[in-house]
Amino acid sequence: MNITELKKHIVPKGFLVSGISAGLKKSGRKDLGLIVSEVPALCAGVFTRNAMRAAPVVLNQQRIGKGPVRALVINSGNANCATGASGLKDARTVTMRLARALRIPEQSVLMGSTGKIGVRLPVSTITAALGTLIEGLSREELYACADAILTTDTVRKVVTLRCTIDGAVYTITAFAKGAGMIQPDMATMLCFILTDAPLARRDAQKLLKEVVETSFNRITIDGQMSTNDMVLLLANGKAARNSEMLKGSQLGPVREALGYLTRKMAALIVEDGEGASRFIEVTVTGAGTTGQADKTARELANSPLIKTACGAGNPNWGRIAQAIGAINRTVDPRCVSIGFYTPASVSLRTQQPRPVPLIVFDKGRPGWISGEKLERIMKGYRIGIMADLGKGRYTRTIWTCDLSEGYIAINKKY
Amino acid sequence: MNITELKKHIVPKGFLVSGISAGLKKSGRKDLGLIVSEVPALCAGVFTRNAMRAAPVVLNQQRIGKGPVRALVINSGNANCATGASGLKDARTVTMRLARALRIPEQSVLMGSTGKIGVRLPVSTITAALGTLIEGLSREELYACADAILTTDTVRKVVTLRCTIDGAVYTITAFAKGAGMIQPDMATMLCFILTDAPLARRDAQKLLKEVVETSFNRITIDGQMSTNDMVLLLANGKAARNSEMLKGSQLGPVREALGYLTRKMAALIVEDGEGASRFIEVTVTGAGTTGQADKTARELANSPLIKTACGAGNPNWGRIAQAIGAINRTVDPRCVSIGFYTPASVSLRTQQPRPVPLIVFDKGRPGWISGEKLERIMKGYRIGIMADLGKGRYTRTIWTCDLSEGYIAINKKY
Repeated sequence: MNITELKKHIVPKGFLVSGISAGLKKSGRKDLGLIVSEVPALCAGVFTRNAMRAAPVVLNQQRIGKGPVRALVINSGNANCATGASGLKDARTVTMRLARALRIPEQSVLMGSTGKIGVRLPVSTITAALGTLIEGLSREELYACADAILTTDTVRKVVTLRCTIDGAVYTITAFAKGAGMIQPDMATMLCFILTDAPLARRDAQKLLKEVVETSFNRITIDGQMSTNDMVLLLANGKAARNSEMLKGSQLGPVREALGYLTRKMAALIVEDGEGASRFIEVTVTGAGTTGQADKTARELANSPLIKTACGAGNPNWGRIAQAIGAINRTVDPRCVSIGFYTPASVSLRTQQPRPVPLIVFDKGRPGWISGEKLERIMKGYRIGIMADLGKGRYTRTIWTCDLSEGYIAINKKY
Repeated sequence: MNITELKKHIVPKGFLVSGISAGLKKSGRKDLGLIVSEVPALCAGVFTRNAMRAAPVVLNQQRIGKGPVRALVINSGNANCATGASGLKDARTVTMRLARALRIPEQSVLMGSTGKIGVRLPVSTITAALGTLIEGLSREELYACADAILTTDTVRKVVTLRCTIDGAVYTITAFAKGAGMIQPDMATMLCFILTDAPLARRDAQKLLKEVVETSFNRITIDGQMSTNDMVLLLANGKAARNSEMLKGSQLGPVREALGYLTRKMAALIVEDGEGASRFIEVTVTGAGTTGQADKTARELANSPLIKTACGAGNPNWGRIAQAIGAINRTVDPRCVSIGFYTPASVSLRTQQPRPVPLIVFDKGRPGWISGEKLERIMKGYRIGIMADLGKGRYTRTIWTCDLSEGYIAINKKY
């Protein structure tokens, strides 16, 4: 294996990061982060498809295809969304002031925001803090920067991979925020991936889109698609041994590394879902179309009845049967099967054998409702639900977490 | 007004009811109810469209069009759903034993069930209790019968109307269960409506379908369509002054009475939603199609973020903006408006003026996020959300309740 995961997280060559408390969050926690590339970096990105997309999403979409990126400023505590034309002006002002201070083109500065929707961005609070933010730049401030984008998250989410391709050693580091308003489509929450590998923009964009589709776009915490979702991949080529971009078969390990990294990050986000106490994997098999498989898996994963049952380790599969029948009104109950299993952890091995479920509803006939084997599965931190529709050969797996009193408490306040 | 609501609930003429504890519920609470009509009654019904419909739903659908109804036996504590061919056999056995004991045709006996899915109906427990159930029949046992169908409900739901048509006085009495797994489509939960008015089956079925569409089909507690939903209307004509059925303009007051009764019952069910502390009315206006209005209103009403915010009286309209944009990906934010208001109670007056909302997001521009007027609305038990999509002229109103820690606690256990 030419890809290894590092326990000690590091920043790829040629990147400097920083994170401070600028006063955007009442709690006084870190709320402003900065990433700077010493040389122009290519940037690939995928964004929310919510029609109410936030100002920083609009700004990045305008700039990302036009040229290389040098800096990315990220704030938490304010989403700068539903703020109209003023919101976009505010985001531009921040990037303009940062560009001047760093003596780089304004168009090479991107922005990310997360926090409360519908409130004007406190521009002067941010610009007043830019000096301190820039002073703090170093390769040692990764955790400070990763912490600055968190909101209701309870743990920092960082993954670092080392990837060897034709003798050159590249580092890929990602950090993300998650927790609530999470059912990405096309993109997700905030996730920033930095690498010192030399990638062409077209390849990077294609790879990013591909891996996001099978990672972030396969999770849901509360079925609520955010307005601020974005995944950005910055590649500055600083670890390259010559001036050539990676290409052809060299992209294989990059795809593999990005695939593992995004799946791992997606799992970390689900595990830290607001109020979450369990990780739930829903696998739909035997669907007539990919669309049916996806819709069924997603709705099972968003069912408050199934989520609360799993949270209590309660094998109440009647709720799964109910949801299957509500989503697929023409399904024949005599063809439907339901099972529970213990899902495998995210692993660098791409081909893992699918776990064999304990069938509790077998082609329309009720089976286990209790028993030692079922209890063992339901007691686990990771619970798998298998639903076979008996219609065709399409499958889909979606990850989610349970719905707990904690989620309610967090969202009453926030 | 020739329709009045009675504070003292009564059973319409010619009906006898009963309710006992047969031992289906571990709690020892009432779990078996019976309604008998002294004379053959016409029966209209609407049922769940869930593909996993329960055995009693299948049984009633087979029998309802074939002839008049004499008896209806209802149990809680077991849904008799996802129980395969055995489940249907079990329901038939119960109705057959009841028919023999009452000396009426088996085909004239219907059944309703609610409770846990996927467990065989304890037939012998039920048949052993039929004697006591029949002995208890009287016009005084309405509350016992209404209580026997409750599960996680915290209050009994009964509405009685008196309706005078051409000098004849008719009584219409309804009782229902609600609480969880509630987003009916076509029908709903369990609701039984009894009347001594003389109705033709075709008229009754048409009226029932019409009123259910604008009452039970416009509520959601948790977005989960039940497998056992049914609304039955039994009309035995015992209060008729001659042998003629009501017809033509005489059906006007019946429609009005049924419309009010089902809307009132739907509101009662929402108010007693699992863990509910507030009543929420979501009104979408300016949609391009009825479908868009309905889908938007329903998804706003099912958003856990909006529900928790309303539960805390938190005017976090950013979550409403987020949900609107996620549901309608091509909507122009500059055309969207959001407001809050205090909804009116269900009233016998059909035409109520629509409350004027306090606009918090005005065609893309953020407005109020606090203030006395907003606080007054958000402090109320009844909270109204208005979302105008600025697309067209279609509207839809959906009722729901907040999502609370109580919902989680109930569904972890149940």
